[in-house]
Amino acid sequence: MGIDVNQEVFGAYAFYAGILLAKMMVMIPLTARQRFSKKVFTSPEDTSSVKGAKVAYDDPDVERVRRAHLNDLENILPFFATAFLYCFTSPAYGTANLLFKVFTGARILHTLVYAVFPVPQPARAISFFVAMFVQVYMVVKIISHFA
Amino acid sequence: MGIDVNQEVFGAYAFYAGILLAKMMVMIPLTARQRFSKKVFTSPEDTSSVKGAKVAYDDPDVERVRRAHLNDLENILPFFATAFLYCFTSPAYGTANLLFKVFTGARILHTLVYAVFPVPQPARAISFFVAMFVQVYMVVKIISHFA
Amino acid sequence: MGIDVNQEVFGAYAFYAGILLAKMMVMIPLTARQRFSKKVFTSPEDTSSVKGAKVAYDDPDVERVRRAHLNDLENILPFFATAFLYCFTSPAYGTANLLFKVFTGARILHTLVYAVFPVPQPARAISFFVAMFVQVYMVVKIISHFA
Repeated sequence: MGIDVNQEVFGAYAFYAGILLAKMMVMIPLTARQRFSKKVFTSPEDTSSVKGAKVAYDDPDVERVRRAHLNDLENILPFFATAFLYCFTSPAYGTANLLFKVFTGARILHTLVYAVFPVPQPARAISFFVAMFVQVYMVVKIISHFA
Repeated sequence: MGIDVNQEVFGAYAFYAGILLAKMMVMIPLTARQRFSKKVFTSPEDTSSVKGAKVAYDDPDVERVRRAHLNDLENILPFFATAFLYCFTSPAYGTANLLFKVFTGARILHTLVYAVFPVPQPARAISFFVAMFVQVYMVVKIISHFA
Repeated sequence: MGIDVNQEVFGAYAFYAGILLAKMMVMIPLTARQRFSKKVFTSPEDTSSVKGAKVAYDDPDVERVRRAHLNDLENILPFFATAFLYCFTSPAYGTANLLFKVFTGARILHTLVYAVFPVPQPARAISFFVAMFVQVYMVVKIISHFA
């Protein structure tokens, strides 16, 4: 056990974490686009800027983007801790880089099929589980390494 | 002030963070179990795989697990940053390990009494506040150390 | 590329992250204050301690604080990863410290105008975007540094 970390592994982590942070931020204009197009807001003070705007929590298009965003909070935010700690379990660079890349690709796909171009299942389920399995694998590695 | 970190303290952090990451992931099958048993889903494309499934946001059993999951996002996700930064405040290993262990135990208990075997209050309130006080203690230490 | 980090930059990160962690924790008593004053709770087992309490999800004052808290999860939690990784992009101390300070101030203001003393827009929008632009700037730096 130690807190030494391979520079290449950490660099791969930083790069893919940066991509995922950018992806999460894209949820903000995606939500705003739906809010302004459907004229649906959450706070009364937000309705004054748009003619005909109202407060509502049940617009299907707005709620779809918000569910995708919440799913990111539930999966991508833990990944920042998981992948960081995984860097300290002495993984091979190729393995670590591949895991980070697969997770990142799967989560970008998840957003696309959930909130941008909704498609029938199992597209979303597959992208969700691919990312989740990568994360479960890393969590198991962390626990067994630091136990 | 410095960014040196004790290897044992960091190892304890990594171990308990791993346990908490695993605990958070358990929320996913816990939610799925309720959704499939109550046949209640959030997106229309999810209802095709289960006969009699419908879209709803008010099933008490499903919402209970989702509230427990949201409570994890509000408390465990900040802990990953709090406990990490606390490692850099030169804590004694025994103190740090105890704080991480108490927080982890309290949050596992919180999930059990909230979402797995719901019991009357104050079981959930106690587990919630024990974890919160641990976190508040560490945040105070971080601010005073790095001020 | 490297994982060397400037001690002063990391210390500034730790300090402002500590302030933001404290700020997020304040959401808990802010929510509780509204729940007990409006006697509105989310779980049936919570209503036994307060006379006249009921379960509801549509109280405007309670929901306002909860939206502010969710907005923190969407913006401050990613910041802990963003600002941490930004420390490894060799920023000047003055720049890094200023960015952390502006983000922290903007998010404290966001909570004040959203959940404590609600004021008309654009107060909340301005504080939201100031913090978001700081974060976007750091994410771009991370991706370009580690690409």
